[in-house]
Formats: sequence, C-alpha cells, structure tokens
Amino acid sequence: MVAIKDLLGETMIRTDGRKVDELRPVRITRHFTDVPEGSVLVECGNTRVMCTATFTAGVPRWRKDSGLGWVTAEYAMLPRATADRTDRESVRGKIGGRTHEISRLIGRCLRGVVDMKALGENQVQIDCDVLQADGGTRTASITGAYVALVDAMHWAEKHKHIRSAKRVIKDSVSAVSVGVIDGTPMLDLPYIEDSKAMTDMNVAMTGSGEFIEIQGTAEHRPFNRAELNALLDLAEKGNKELQAAQQSALAQD
Amino acid sequence: MVAIKDLLGETMIRTDGRKVDELRPVRITRHFTDVPEGSVLVECGNTRVMCTATFTAGVPRWRKDSGLGWVTAEYAMLPRATADRTDRESVRGKIGGRTHEISRLIGRCLRGVVDMKALGENQVQIDCDVLQADGGTRTASITGAYVALVDAMHWAEKHKHIRSAKRVIKDSVSAVSVGVIDGTPMLDLPYIEDSKAMTDMNVAMTGSGEFIEIQGTAEHRPFNRAELNALLDLAEKGNKELQAAQQSALAQD
Amino acid sequence: MVAIKDLLGETMIRTDGRKVDELRPVRITRHFTDVPEGSVLVECGNTRVMCTATFTAGVPRWRKDSGLGWVTAEYAMLPRATADRTDRESVRGKIGGRTHEISRLIGRCLRGVVDMKALGENQVQIDCDVLQADGGTRTASITGAYVALVDAMHWAEKHKHIRSAKRVIKDSVSAVSVGVIDGTPMLDLPYIEDSKAMTDMNVAMTGSGEFIEIQGTAEHRPFNRAELNALLDLAEKGNKELQAAQQSALAQD
Amino acid sequence: MVAIKDLLGETMIRTDGRKVDELRPVRITRHFTDVPEGSVLVECGNTRVMCTATFTAGVPRWRKDSGLGWVTAEYAMLPRATADRTDRESVRGKIGGRTHEISRLIGRCLRGVVDMKALGENQVQIDCDVLQADGGTRTASITGAYVALVDAMHWAEKHKHIRSAKRVIKDSVSAVSVGVIDGTPMLDLPYIEDSKAMTDMNVAMTGSGEFIEIQGTAEHRPFNRAELNALLDLAEKGNKELQAAQQSALAQD
Amino acid sequence: MVAIKDLLGETMIRTDGRKVDELRPVRITRHFTDVPEGSVLVECGNTRVMCTATFTAGVPRWRKDSGLGWVTAEYAMLPRATADRTDRESVRGKIGGRTHEISRLIGRCLRGVVDMKALGENQVQIDCDVLQADGGTRTASITGAYVALVDAMHWAEKHKHIRSAKRVIKDSVSAVSVGVIDGTPMLDLPYIEDSKAMTDMNVAMTGSGEFIEIQGTAEHRPFNRAELNALLDLAEKGNKELQAAQQSALAQD
Amino acid sequence: MVAIKDLLGETMIRTDGRKVDELRPVRITRHFTDVPEGSVLVECGNTRVMCTATFTAGVPRWRKDSGLGWVTAEYAMLPRATADRTDRESVRGKIGGRTHEISRLIGRCLRGVVDMKALGENQVQIDCDVLQADGGTRTASITGAYVALVDAMHWAEKHKHIRSAKRVIKDSVSAVSVGVIDGTPMLDLPYIEDSKAMTDMNVAMTGSGEFIEIQGTAEHRPFNRAELNALLDLAEKGNKELQAAQQSALAQD
Repeated sequence: MVAIKDLLGETMIRTDGRKVDELRPVRITRHFTDVPEGSVLVECGNTRVMCTATFTAGVPRWRKDSGLGWVTAEYAMLPRATADRTDRESVRGKIGGRTHEISRLIGRCLRGVVDMKALGENQVQIDCDVLQADGGTRTASITGAYVALVDAMHWAEKHKHIRSAKRVIKDSVSAVSVGVIDGTPMLDLPYIEDSKAMTDMNVAMTGSGEFIEIQGTAEHRPFNRAELNALLDLAEKGNKELQAAQQSALAQD
Repeated sequence: MVAIKDLLGETMIRTDGRKVDELRPVRITRHFTDVPEGSVLVECGNTRVMCTATFTAGVPRWRKDSGLGWVTAEYAMLPRATADRTDRESVRGKIGGRTHEISRLIGRCLRGVVDMKALGENQVQIDCDVLQADGGTRTASITGAYVALVDAMHWAEKHKHIRSAKRVIKDSVSAVSVGVIDGTPMLDLPYIEDSKAMTDMNVAMTGSGEFIEIQGTAEHRPFNRAELNALLDLAEKGNKELQAAQQSALAQD
Repeated sequence: MVAIKDLLGETMIRTDGRKVDELRPVRITRHFTDVPEGSVLVECGNTRVMCTATFTAGVPRWRKDSGLGWVTAEYAMLPRATADRTDRESVRGKIGGRTHEISRLIGRCLRGVVDMKALGENQVQIDCDVLQADGGTRTASITGAYVALVDAMHWAEKHKHIRSAKRVIKDSVSAVSVGVIDGTPMLDLPYIEDSKAMTDMNVAMTGSGEFIEIQGTAEHRPFNRAELNALLDLAEKGNKELQAAQQSALAQD
Repeated sequence: MVAIKDLLGETMIRTDGRKVDELRPVRITRHFTDVPEGSVLVECGNTRVMCTATFTAGVPRWRKDSGLGWVTAEYAMLPRATADRTDRESVRGKIGGRTHEISRLIGRCLRGVVDMKALGENQVQIDCDVLQADGGTRTASITGAYVALVDAMHWAEKHKHIRSAKRVIKDSVSAVSVGVIDGTPMLDLPYIEDSKAMTDMNVAMTGSGEFIEIQGTAEHRPFNRAELNALLDLAEKGNKELQAAQQSALAQD
Repeated sequence: MVAIKDLLGETMIRTDGRKVDELRPVRITRHFTDVPEGSVLVECGNTRVMCTATFTAGVPRWRKDSGLGWVTAEYAMLPRATADRTDRESVRGKIGGRTHEISRLIGRCLRGVVDMKALGENQVQIDCDVLQADGGTRTASITGAYVALVDAMHWAEKHKHIRSAKRVIKDSVSAVSVGVIDGTPMLDLPYIEDSKAMTDMNVAMTGSGEFIEIQGTAEHRPFNRAELNALLDLAEKGNKELQAAQQSALAQD
Repeated sequence: MVAIKDLLGETMIRTDGRKVDELRPVRITRHFTDVPEGSVLVECGNTRVMCTATFTAGVPRWRKDSGLGWVTAEYAMLPRATADRTDRESVRGKIGGRTHEISRLIGRCLRGVVDMKALGENQVQIDCDVLQADGGTRTASITGAYVALVDAMHWAEKHKHIRSAKRVIKDSVSAVSVGVIDGTPMLDLPYIEDSKAMTDMNVAMTGSGEFIEIQGTAEHRPFNRAELNALLDLAEKGNKELQAAQQSALAQD
C-alpha cells in the first residue's frame, strides 16, 4: 500500500466524496427473482445489474462426450439503463462489438474458477442485464454472476445433478475497475470518472488473490510500469472487499 | 354483475385461492430506476415488469411538421423471466412474432389516451421489460406503462417541453386478461390457468369505462355471445380496480 | 338487428354506394393455380388475396410423437398491392410487426376449426399473398384460406394421408372487418373507410355462429359497450354471408 | 434455319407435343391489377408471372443531378409457385443467390432498351412475382416486364412526368430459354426439360434482332460452337414470336 | 481469325500498349499459403486473386448416399482491392447480388470439369479472395481456382481420399473477359476498359475448346451476331493462352 | 531481465527451437498492393496479415465539426487462414464476438498513438485480413497496421490533406503475445503453444516503452503478480524488437 499512497497523495477527494482507494457501496441481493437456479441483483453505487444463472443438464453438441461441463455468459443493457435511451440490439438485429466483448469477458472469468470435470456434462448460462448503468457494469456483472453461479451449483447439488457444489467452484471471483484520472490512480470508477480516465483497467481476481483477467486500455495516454503497479494494488484492495461482500451475501439464508 | 354470478356459480375457487372475479395482488412502484423520465415496476401476482418512459423532444421524420407527437412501445422478456430460459432475440438476430404483436398492442393502447396535439412534436418511447413472467405480462405492461407515461409527462411539463401533462393525458388506461377455464369465465389468469384456457381475452379500458382494445382468441374452443359478455363484465371489474391502484400510486410522491 | 338500426339510422349511404350493413361483392375462385393442394383467389371488392394450402406429411420437431397435426400461416403483400410501392420484407431482411401479427392471426383462426387429432401427424401451411389491397386483407385471407384448407383436406383424404376431411374440419371459419366511421358502425371497410375509422374490429366466426377471434382497436376514440354490440351484430351478419359464399364455392366442381 | 434442321432432325417430338422450335402458348394480360402504373400477367405455358412497373419521380441519391433516370428490378417466387413449397426469403431473412442473379438480369435487360436521358430523373421499379413456375420464369419475367414498362411510360407521359414514352423506350426486349436435351437443341424449356438439359441458355433480344444478354451454362456437358449457333438460331425465332405477342398485347386497349 | 482482323483493323493500340487480341501478363503462383489443400495466387495484369481449394471428406446432407461429390465456390473482395474502399459484406450483414452471382458462376464452371462420381462423396470448397481488382476478377478467379482444384485433387489422391485425381478432373477450365470498346472487340479488359465497354462478355472454356459458360451483357448497346462471333474468337484465343499458363504452372514442382 | 532468467531457467527450448524470450522471424513488406494509401504485409513466423490503411477526407457524422480526426479498424480471417476452413462471416450474416473484440482492440491501439487534432477532420480505416494464421494474428495486425498508417499519413501529407505526418503520429506502437506454458513464461506464441497456454497476454506498447493495452486472460489457471511481471518483461523485450523492425521497414523506400 505504501507505493499507492506516494503516488496518490493523502488528500485527494472525489466528486462523490470517496477516497481514491474506496469502493462505492456494494449491495448483493440473492433470490432477486423466483424462477432461476441463481438470481442476484448486484448494486455498485448506482450501477445495478440483474444476474441469473441457468443450470441445464447436458452440454452443447461440440462438448458432448467430453465428460466436461460448460459455462457461458450473455450481457445486455436495458434501453433506459443509460441517460440517453440505447436502441435494443434485438431491434437493430445484431449484437454490437461492446456487448460481444463483455459477454465473452464474463464467461472467461467464471470459467476461470469452475472445475469443468466436477461440473460434468452440464451447462450454466449466465445472464447479466443492466437495469441501471453508472460505470463498471461489466465488473459488477462478474461480481454478481459469481454469486448467482454458486446458488445455481447448490441447486444442482440439491437436485443431484452434480455431486458437490464446492468441488465445482474452485475459488471465488470478483472484478473491479481502476483508472488514472488527472494523473491519479483511482478505484471503482463511476461513469463520470470513467469518461475522463486516461487509462482504464478492469481486473478480475480470485479469492486467493490471483489474476483471472486484466484488461487495461490507454486510448488517451499510455501508462508506465509504475502506474500499472499502482492500479493493480488498488484493484487487489477492491477485489478483496468485493469478495467479502460476496461471502457475506452467501452466508445468509 | 348479476350475469356473471349466474354463469360462474358462487363457490368456484382457484389454485391460488382467489375467487373467479378477483385480481392478483397489484403493486406499482414508481421511480424504480433513477434516470428515465418515467420508471415503474408493476407487479401483478408473480408477474413483474419494468416499464420506462423516455421523453424526447422531436418526432420521427415521417411525423415532422405535423404539429403532432408520437408514442411508441417495445416489449421484451429477460431470458430467465420464464421457467425455461428463452434465447435472447438480439442473439437470434430478429424479433419474434409474439414480441412484435405485444409491442404494437402496448403502443396502440397508450396512444389511445394521448392527445397528440397537446403533446406537440415530441416523442415518448415506452419500454416494457419482463423481469418475471407468470401470465398477463402484456396487460401488466399496459397498466404499468400508463403510470410511467404520466410521470414522463409531468417531467416534460416541469421542463417546459409541454404545456400541460393533464391535457396530454386524456384519460387513464389499464388492461387485464380474462378467460374461460373449464367452462368458467375468470379474471386475471396466471400462467397455469392461461395455458389451459379455452378462450383468452385481453381487454384494455379507459378510466371512464370505455374500451381501447379487445383481443379475444379461441384457439381451443369458440365462445358465444353470452360468454363474451361475462368476460367483458369481469374485465370491467378488474380494470376498475387496476385504475384505482394506478391512481393511488400516482397520488404518492 | 333492431339495435343496429337505432344506432345507424336508415339512410346512411357510403362512398361506394353500399348500405352500412352490406358486404362488398365477394368472389372465391378455387384451383387458381394448379400445383398446390389448395389454391384459392378470394376477392372482396378490390381486395384480392391468393391463398394456398400446402399439405405435408409429418409435423415440425416439437410436435413429433404427439399424434397431433399442425396448421400454420404466412401472410405477405406483393410490393404493388398498395398505392405506393411497399419494400419487400425479403430485401429489408426482416418481417415487420404487422406481417407477423396477421400471420399469427390467420394461423389461430384456422387452427380454431381443425381437429388436430383427426389431422394426425401432418402439417398444413397456409400462404396468403395479397395481390391487391383495399382494406380487409387479413379478414379476406382467413375467408379464402378456409376454402384452400378444405380443398387440401380433400386432396389428403383422396391420397390416403388422412381418413376423413370432414372429421378434420370441425366447422367453417370466415372473418370480416367492422368499424365505427363518423360515429356510425359499418360492415366490411375498404381502405378509405378503414383509414378514418375511430374504431376498427376484425371478427372471425365459425359457421355455427361462435367467435374464434375478436380484435378491436380504438386508437382514435374509445368505444362503449353499446357500440361494441352493434359492431358484433354487423360482424355476425357479414360472416354469415361470407360463409354462404364459401359453401357455394365449395359446392361447385 | 437450315442449320437447325440439320442438327435437330425433322421428327423430334416433345413431352408436351411441341416441335423443337416451337414456343409454349404465350398470353399477356395487361391491367392485371388496378393500382400500378404498369401491371401485366404473362403466361408462358404453365409459367405465370405477375409483372408490375412502379413509376416514381426522382432517382436514388447516387444518381441525383445526373439528368438520368434509373430502372431496377426485383424477382421473387411465391411459396407455392413450385411443386414443393419454397420457404419465403423474408422469413429466412435473406435473399438467395438465385434471386439476386435473376433480379439483376431483369434489370439489365430492361435498362438495355431505355434511354435514361429521355426518362429524366425518374425511376421505374419492376417487380416480377412468380405465381406458378414451370421453367423459364426469368425469361417470362423479362418478356412481361417490358410490357409493364411500356404501360408505365404511357402513364408517365399522360401525367407529364416525361415528354415522350416513345423516346424513352428505344426498342422492345423479350427473352427466351433454349437448351440442349439429349443432344437436341430445343426452344422454350418447361421445368421437366430444363432439369435434364445438358446446356441451358437464356437469350434476351431486342425487337431489332440484337442481343441484350446471353447466359449459357453447361454444368453437365460443355457445348461447342455449332451447338451454340443452333441455340442462338432457336432463340432468335422464339424472341421474334414473343415480340409479336408483346406488340399485339400493347395494340389493344 | 480472319473475321476479327476485318472487324478490328490492324493498328488499334490500347492504353496499356497491348494489341486488341493480347492478354495481360499472367502469373500463377502455387502453394501461395501453406495450409490449404490447394492455394494459388493468380495475377492477370494488376488483378490479383488468392484462390484456395479445401478438400473435405463427406458431402452436404442433401447429397448424402448419392455416391457423388460436390464442388462449391465463394468469391469476395478485400475492402481495399478497389480504388475506393468497399464496405465488408460481413459488416453489412449480407452478401450482395454481385458477389452471389460471381460465386455461383465460379462454382458452375469448376463443376463443369469435375466427374462427381470419381470424386466420390467428398466436397471441395473453392475460395477466391480478390487482393487487388483491376477488371476480370471473376474470370481470373476461375482460371486460378482450377489450378488450386488440381492441387487439392493430388493431395486427396496422395491421402487416399480419392482413387485418381486425373479421373476426377475431366478437363481443364479457364475464363477470360472480352468486350466491345468504341466499336472494337477486345480481349481481357482491365477496369478502365471494362467501365466503358458497350458490351461485356465472360467466357469460360475447357481445354478441349468447348464452352462451359458464356455471359454476355449489353447494358449500353446491343450487339449483333457478327460482333458476338468476333468476341467468341477472341475468347477462344485468350483461353488457349491461359490454359497454357495453367499447364506450365502445374508442370513445375 | 534478471527476474525472467530466474523464473525461466536457462535451458528451456521450444518446438520451433526458439529460446523462451525470442521472437519469431518478422518480415514487414510495404506497398504490398498498389492502390491503398498504406498497404503492408506483416509476417510473424507463419502468421501473415495484410494490413491496409485507407485515408478519407472527412469524418463520420457524430464527429463532424469537432476539428478532430478518427481512426477505426476491421479485422477478418480469410476462410483458409486456418487448418480447418472457417465459414465466412459475410455468409453467416454476422460478425462473431472474437472478430468484434479484435477489431476494437486494433482501433484502440492505433488511436493511442494518433494526435486527432493534427489529423484534422479526416478518417483512417485500417483493414487487417489474415491470409495465414499461426497464433498472434491480432498482435501482428497491430504491428503491421502501424506501418500502413504511417504510409497513409505520408500520402496525406504529400497530397496536402494534413500538414505533417510526424505531428499526427505521436509515437509508434507494436504488440506481441506472451503466455505461460507449462509454468514457463514465453514470448510470441505460435498456435501450438497458444492453445496450451495457461495464461495468455497481449501487450501493445509505444516506442517510448509505455503500455497502450494489456489483455491478460487466465481461463485455465490464474496467475500471480510475479508471473505477470515476468510476462511484462518479455513483452517489453519483444515489442522493442518489433519496433526496430518497423523502423527498418519504414527507413527503406
């Protein structure tokens, strides 16, 4: 943490009053809807994403007779998740590049903590639908989808589709965004900060503190190794706290 | 009401304990999300629909220089609104017939109570996204969308886009489903009843008790004039109660 | 009929000289083309629709091993059926909402008179292609498609695909539009009337006088119960006459 | 003609009793529908195509301010034009290769006889919809579309959109198929012959006897120069007769 | 050849200095990429097309159990093959008419020289991707694809998928464009000539001098029989030379 | 470099004989085709990508009157770039998620080194078409596209569309893949290594040694901070060498 403090200074305060290394308030609501095997509403500040996990016995054709399961994800925004209404991709008749990119990211992150052999030839489909967007929708999706996935695994264990939910879920996973704003590395960017970030990074980590996915982009100003390290430190801190929120949500029942 | 009692008998009880002429519990939550001009969560029993109303200054090109406004609607289901996951229409690359049909129905019902001249050259886009589906999603959408529309009109009045919300909204509108199950006309069908209805009718009515839309279908057994009248009586009763719920939600602030 | 007379007045005359409760001239030509199992040209005034019925042994996958048949319908307009050329939906790459809605309506109406068990695991595909459109294309389609369906059933009986055409066809079905123009309920609206109707209703009825489908829309002015009853009386009269035309066409050969 | 006789032998008779150099009966019905500027039903044997010509003032954007007009064409088959039902391209969501190819061919042939300067900045859209298909649908479309085009030009002259229909239409155009069946060149192939042709050629010619388009395909057996010449002789004969039919149809009123 | 000389005059010289009956320089590079069963770069002047042949054991479903093979082709342009960038058809979401037409042409030409029985139930997919376009891309594609096809057949013979490449390839095939420019028939048109040709013809011929495909178009000025004959003479000369280039390329190794 | 040696051991040798920190042979061919403003063939081992840069005066509508330019990119694979033929996205009718993701990545990387103000209201479209794929196609695309972009800027300077190519191009950019295979971090993975990598990272860097984009994925095994650092060291080394190759190619003329 020493390195960050040096880079950030002690006194930096953000529009919403948070410190540079402070997460927005996180709320994770399980059983948000009744029907899915896992159904979670995750709220990170004003960002709200509904994450469902659908368990299906059997796998897609290309995966048949492998003895392995599969996990896939789809991400979408409701039209008025955003300040200006976004046209539906169903109406436009095609999925946009951003949607594709995020859906693939979520799928990879969850697969990164699933033991496909323990899952057996079963499939989990994750759906992340953004009800309200205020930055960090993709990272909130990952954080919420993990909880929905765990619930779906418990459902599957209870209904004898899998032997043990614990063996399927090798580790937990959460994700958070970090970025450099006006030269200062910051944790968990809302839309207003995100839009003026020079560098923007999404970091998904496991409960044991390793990386599943790092996506850093510097469209506006390249970043150096020192900044990268500061950002990764922030991301580690944020993910630890998100994982605490996940555990606490999963502890209730 | 006399006619119904004769047809129905007094003692008929349904799976969920309701009487044949009893609505499911209705809840209408305004300001469900923060950003849209109108944002409503409507719950009719287990059916939950998020309805937003987007106000935009200006109209589509074909409506330009007419002095008239426009109201349009889009309906969609989230993948796990249903017991089995439904593929996203964005992924399939096209809107299905049912979605088209319902979107058009919602649009017509709302246009039926809007004074386009008073709206002026402005557009309202209604989005109804079903979070959970247990029958009657299209009628719940209409009932909720009306409330979102009113909120959007107040927003527009406050922001000087229109002169008077009251003059734009000529009347209220709500809708409910009715159907004949095992020979008995019933009000407000959940999925389990809907799927075995011989006749199925959706009725949208104004606050002053007139019809905006009647859609009756008898794929399984044709219906006669007497049954039709019994169904319309039930629909009138249900819509009156739904309109009371709308008024009560709009009274709060 | 008394009620109607009261509402309508005795002297109302329409642009085309018809009385308010008078159908346009109907012509039903069987064997319009040579190849289909049923091929009918139906003309209602200037509206002309070619209706074919395609019989196929076997049913779609989701219907397999049910012992039941299936009937489905597709509706389309030729580009110059209308005064202004309408772009082809094949060129636009998608089916519009109106087309979807009408195709589904036609399918439901015909299924309403078919005994799926007697049809056995066979499929009938109805195609309604509008050669010329002057209002009432969807109701003309239903009226014509019924005749094509009967011819296809006779073909299937003759070729031993089904036991008895009579047992498959439980009843006849026809449809007609009615509407309120300038406060007056009228039967069978051509385009010019349809476009200024305050209320517009399509009513499909069986030969035994029951309702298969009622679709009433009041985008421009809601309607009350009395008007609804007047419209339904007109629709009953119209459908009776259309069914006489169907029977007379089917009697020839 | 000498060359043909040598190649063909004198006695060859076809399934339908025609001689090898004999056209199927041609019928051209003008004003087939009421609304289009030109509307023609062309029948070549059992092949029936409805051809409409839509006149629109103005040209597509890329043609603006050129002083030149434009002619374009679209071809389609109704689902039951064929013995087995063909899926609608609107439902499949895309135009197939064959449809594209034929639409482009028809457009080129008609443009080949139109003086774009005399047409001025106006557009003609040709629609050829096959009601019944028995071989030669693309050539029948060209033959019929020419007549519809002429009618549309007269309409445009009458309505003062163009100065002179005669100056726009530089020449007439018709088309016919020829092919080699079992080693014998033949004129105007119905489906049964077309499907077993070794070589298949569509030839569009002007009234003054020149070629607009030649498309010869030898998927099953290459052809030599002598056969080519025999086929071209047959096509010349057939086109002359088709042009006589066109003139005779246009002479009536 | 006499006829041509008369028509052409002796002294005509073209922009690029070629004689009217002279081909552009042809270069055929085999093994252009490493992975495909056949991979050829064909260059005709500045036109460069990469042609690959993919051999797959098995045929499409509709061809199963016929004992016959299948050959199919797809043609596409890279976006900057042309002077102005052409939008990708993948991005537009559909294949254009021109692409469809050319893909089908290439497929037909190659099938014209393949013995489907000797190929057995195997499939060859030809891909022709234009790296640089300067007229004649479709004919260059055919010429190059033939060489790729032969290489793929040798690969298949070596890997025991077919008995004998020689028996599969019944004959060679090449193609060339010819056209009438300012009244003069010319061989092998580059883009600048092609765009001002009155008549434009693509001619595919076998090594034994017969025709596989003739496509002549006269959008700008019809052509007569004498011109047609002159064009065919030029095409014969050009194809003979292209076939020599094919043989010489195939002789190396 | 010390850190790497410790992690890697000294003796590790790869399938293709390279050391763990050794690039595959790089070849950059400018002016690969004649027409585009920039046209480059980049070869990294067996991976070959054709990169073109299209300069267009003017920007897309949403960018108008901003005084700023725009750079965008599209990536695609030819069907037989891969061992098994990949279906064309144009034929499937939509762009896949992977293609979208890579196109967006390339665009961001190039925009990261472009001064949009100096570019003015002009657009550069980058097209990267993979002729042959053996791992690292997206990073090779970035490396090659940079060179094409520079050539296009020189063209634009020469043709007075921009003032100074040097001022537009703020820095160079290249990219390389790194990954952990069997626990060993390695530089520049061919397909065979890529497919068994536990962790896979693409790193785009500027000539001045800063990061433009980092994308690390650990679908198969999470990675820790030490491994991340080793991978970044390798990427730095690789990118330095790639930038030397870029400079050397650009030095020629």
